[in-house]
Amino acid sequence: MKIAVCQINPIVGDVRHNTQLICSFIERAKGEGADLVVFPELAVLGYPPRDLLYRPETFGLVEQVLNEEIQTRSQGIGVILGAPVKDSFNRSLYNSALFYRCGSLMGRQDKTLLPTYDVFDERRYFSAARERGIFHFKSFKIGCSICEDIWNDKDYWGELRYEFDPVYEQAVEKGADIIINIAASPYNFGKRSLRADMLGAAARKYGRAIVFVNQVGGNDELVFDGSSLVLDSTGRIVWQGRSFEEDFTVIEFPNKSMSSFQVKEGIECIYDALVLGVRDYIRKVGLSKAVIGISGGIDSAVVAAVAVDALGSENVLGVFMPSRYSSAQSLADSRCLARNLGILLREISIEAVFDTFLKQLNNGKLLQDVAEENLQARIRGNILMFISNKEGHLVLSTGNKSEMAVGYTTLYGDMSGGLSVLGDVFKTTVYELAHYINRRKEVIPQSIISKAPSAELRPNQKDEDSLPPYAVLDSILKAYIEENMSLEKIVAQGFDEYLVKDVINKVDRSEYKRKQAPITLRVSAKAFGSGRRFPIAWRRP
Amino acid sequence: MKIAVCQINPIVGDVRHNTQLICSFIERAKGEGADLVVFPELAVLGYPPRDLLYRPETFGLVEQVLNEEIQTRSQGIGVILGAPVKDSFNRSLYNSALFYRCGSLMGRQDKTLLPTYDVFDERRYFSAARERGIFHFKSFKIGCSICEDIWNDKDYWGELRYEFDPVYEQAVEKGADIIINIAASPYNFGKRSLRADMLGAAARKYGRAIVFVNQVGGNDELVFDGSSLVLDSTGRIVWQGRSFEEDFTVIEFPNKSMSSFQVKEGIECIYDALVLGVRDYIRKVGLSKAVIGISGGIDSAVVAAVAVDALGSENVLGVFMPSRYSSAQSLADSRCLARNLGILLREISIEAVFDTFLKQLNNGKLLQDVAEENLQARIRGNILMFISNKEGHLVLSTGNKSEMAVGYTTLYGDMSGGLSVLGDVFKTTVYELAHYINRRKEVIPQSIISKAPSAELRPNQKDEDSLPPYAVLDSILKAYIEENMSLEKIVAQGFDEYLVKDVINKVDRSEYKRKQAPITLRVSAKAFGSGRRFPIAWRRP
Repeated sequence: MKIAVCQINPIVGDVRHNTQLICSFIERAKGEGADLVVFPELAVLGYPPRDLLYRPETFGLVEQVLNEEIQTRSQGIGVILGAPVKDSFNRSLYNSALFYRCGSLMGRQDKTLLPTYDVFDERRYFSAARERGIFHFKSFKIGCSICEDIWNDKDYWGELRYEFDPVYEQAVEKGADIIINIAASPYNFGKRSLRADMLGAAARKYGRAIVFVNQVGGNDELVFDGSSLVLDSTGRIVWQGRSFEEDFTVIEFPNKSMSSFQVKEGIECIYDALVLGVRDYIRKVGLSKAVIGISGGIDSAVVAAVAVDALGSENVLGVFMPSRYSSAQSLADSRCLARNLGILLREISIEAVFDTFLKQLNNGKLLQDVAEENLQARIRGNILMFISNKEGHLVLSTGNKSEMAVGYTTLYGDMSGGLSVLGDVFKTTVYELAHYINRRKEVIPQSIISKAPSAELRPNQKDEDSLPPYAVLDSILKAYIEENMSLEKIVAQGFDEYLVKDVINKVDRSEYKRKQAPITLRVSAKAFGSGRRFPIAWRRP
Repeated sequence: MKIAVCQINPIVGDVRHNTQLICSFIERAKGEGADLVVFPELAVLGYPPRDLLYRPETFGLVEQVLNEEIQTRSQGIGVILGAPVKDSFNRSLYNSALFYRCGSLMGRQDKTLLPTYDVFDERRYFSAARERGIFHFKSFKIGCSICEDIWNDKDYWGELRYEFDPVYEQAVEKGADIIINIAASPYNFGKRSLRADMLGAAARKYGRAIVFVNQVGGNDELVFDGSSLVLDSTGRIVWQGRSFEEDFTVIEFPNKSMSSFQVKEGIECIYDALVLGVRDYIRKVGLSKAVIGISGGIDSAVVAAVAVDALGSENVLGVFMPSRYSSAQSLADSRCLARNLGILLREISIEAVFDTFLKQLNNGKLLQDVAEENLQARIRGNILMFISNKEGHLVLSTGNKSEMAVGYTTLYGDMSGGLSVLGDVFKTTVYELAHYINRRKEVIPQSIISKAPSAELRPNQKDEDSLPPYAVLDSILKAYIEENMSLEKIVAQGFDEYLVKDVINKVDRSEYKRKQAPITLRVSAKAFGSGRRFPIAWRRP
């Protein structure tokens, strides 16, 4: 049996567009002699559709394209694809794999395990499958599951995370010959090797080949890396889909290939995720150009490099907005960066506006307090938004996760923008990204990398005047935010208790800023955004 | 049996504070000779705790106060209260009612029905109860359920919304003599009469008295109205807790009182919800003062009136920020409003800053385009935030739901603020609020109410230049957003198809603005906020 794996990049909500995409891949699979063609989870609607699943018009159209477009194309080829299905009998909504063949719907497997944690809200929308069966195709019995369904192997995790183990039921009880998992599994650092390892263990355990078909593309904060996997019955990876782009292949089963793939999991994946996240967000909101406030610091340099890779240098505009506190070095570095990246750099001083504001609000006095620091950042935000409104660029905001965590950012100032590129990247990782970028081509001037970080909002200001060194800060933040450690446990790792308390307190108290942050590309297992839901007006006892 | 109903206002997360509050009410109940004292859902932690339920330190402390404070105080009185319980056997987390008596834990009933829709995410955190029992207290059998548990009466709804009906099991199968429901049931328009009607039907159906104990207070976007209810076995309301404030009573069962209560459900409830929402948000984030941009329009006038009721006139600062487009009438109206409310009004022109910006960005030219309109709004936002940063006020933003829906607002401009007061109030309802406020005391000048709405961002601008009349707009928005109607159904109600398409398109395309909106007080069943989760980079097919 020849199976075509279609790693597609759908647009959330655009059922007609996605259907066209699916149909073109079906035709391609037919052309390459495939027996069966497989698409990701909810392929027809895109993942995650969120409350579009509450809209009545969604289902009429999904049903229509399934009946009129997909079903008819299943003449001469089997098709498995993900779609939301409103059951006509019990009126419940299911996240389903549909199996078409010979112009008919031959099977439906609903998702059993509905992730409702982190960024996932599936029990908000879907009912769980009550039964798990197999699809019969020629002489093959196919055990088809949907994403989370394959993440509950007691032997792998040491415990059952859910009541049911759909893959066990299909492989052992129903005797499936092959395991197919259609997925929309978003990237985060560490996820790719975990996924490969877990799937390898499952293939070995059941002695079955596994075909894992993942969505690719950026959808708001989530970046799906694709990297679909085909594993043989010994758990060896015999094919891996491209990472962070669409891909297609046809594989024969049982597989005789001896090729073996390595799963990459490094700084380059974070970089690629950011590039795809920026490209897809801007494309999918219908824009093509971005504007970035270039400060001469490392954050904006890395964002500019990502944006150039995502959109092309002709679509990226840098704006340098000096004040009395900006150093000559910042200007020189910004110009050098822009030249290296081949982007335009506009220079607009904020001095005249800042002065006028001070006259109006402060009787012209300069007090160098936080209100004035924020005002400078907000004037810069206004300028970027003015350019955006006038010329149609999307503003990319440049704040990193360390700053966002402790509130070392200005709401409506440097937090302005349609998309936050580094809001899930700690400062220490921003440096890693800069080195990675420069290893490919030296575009970020060395002095940007080597100088001490500064917001340049008062004379000789350095980040480390207000914050601990980033290596220390990031370790504490990682423990608190990503690993959910208690104060005591963090202190037990060797950090000063007063410092840890202060950092935690800053994190807790900047929740209100993050509430109003732009969509933030997620590259860690615990990003600020829909996966982290804290109250604002709460108090630590 | 004498039951004490404790309608308390906990602070989310502050377990020590909440425990003190609970203990003081237990002592009060003892003092008034109560046999049993009852507190709301999750009383010890406050509702909704959201991801604080993932924090390890939460549970240690909850367990400690339950064991050391609550349990010991149950000598001589029965105590029922809500708390999160991490089951020591299966390590699952439950949303539980705990029953203490004679210094011991005598019973625990976990919540069975876990709402995971709208603003609720309970299946993100909690496991569902596997069993439903009763609490034995003296000669009484008490059927105790938690909030949603009582919202699944097949006879009332015409269908089962969930698999289990906990109250039926307790009342019919286990023979409970009395039904207690501990709740954190937030206010929205229409909810109060629905709640009373549904509880009345349940009391009649089972021929049992019902004690419904609700939380009160504002917690971020949610406002809990309290209004706890005691119904006799004929479904008559024999006691109603105060609305939008704490309350306490002791009631004897079986009840012989003939008093009967009416449940209010009008514009005054929306007003009271906004007042409590503002007061509690500001108090619970540790502030006391608010600043409001006063434009001379109706939205800022209503917000100012709400703020004065919430915080006292001495804690409210108005700022009038005229431009070349501001009318003399706007200034006169703003001054009159401020005088009537007894608040300070600062006047700060935006002209000089606007001019300087135009010189810097536009070669001094005035093009009267959307970039310039937004710039004016953003200068005003900067001024308010400057005052906030300098003087410690919270900025209350004044945009209404109609504007927020269609994106007739400026991100980082008039959308600036820590809390959006009217973001869930349609413009037509803002007028109702103004009339309601003036019926109590004429504080909003008539000319503010009677003039045509205008943003005053270009000469002679009127809202109706860009938008349909608000009566029409609000009807379409209500159908689309709150009732989830399709385009076809809205048009079938008699609206122009082109107009409806345009409005829907505007709503869909302003999702990115709402993503960055402040916390918005929720007074409708479908507010912008955590109860409405739409993708941003999506496309209608």
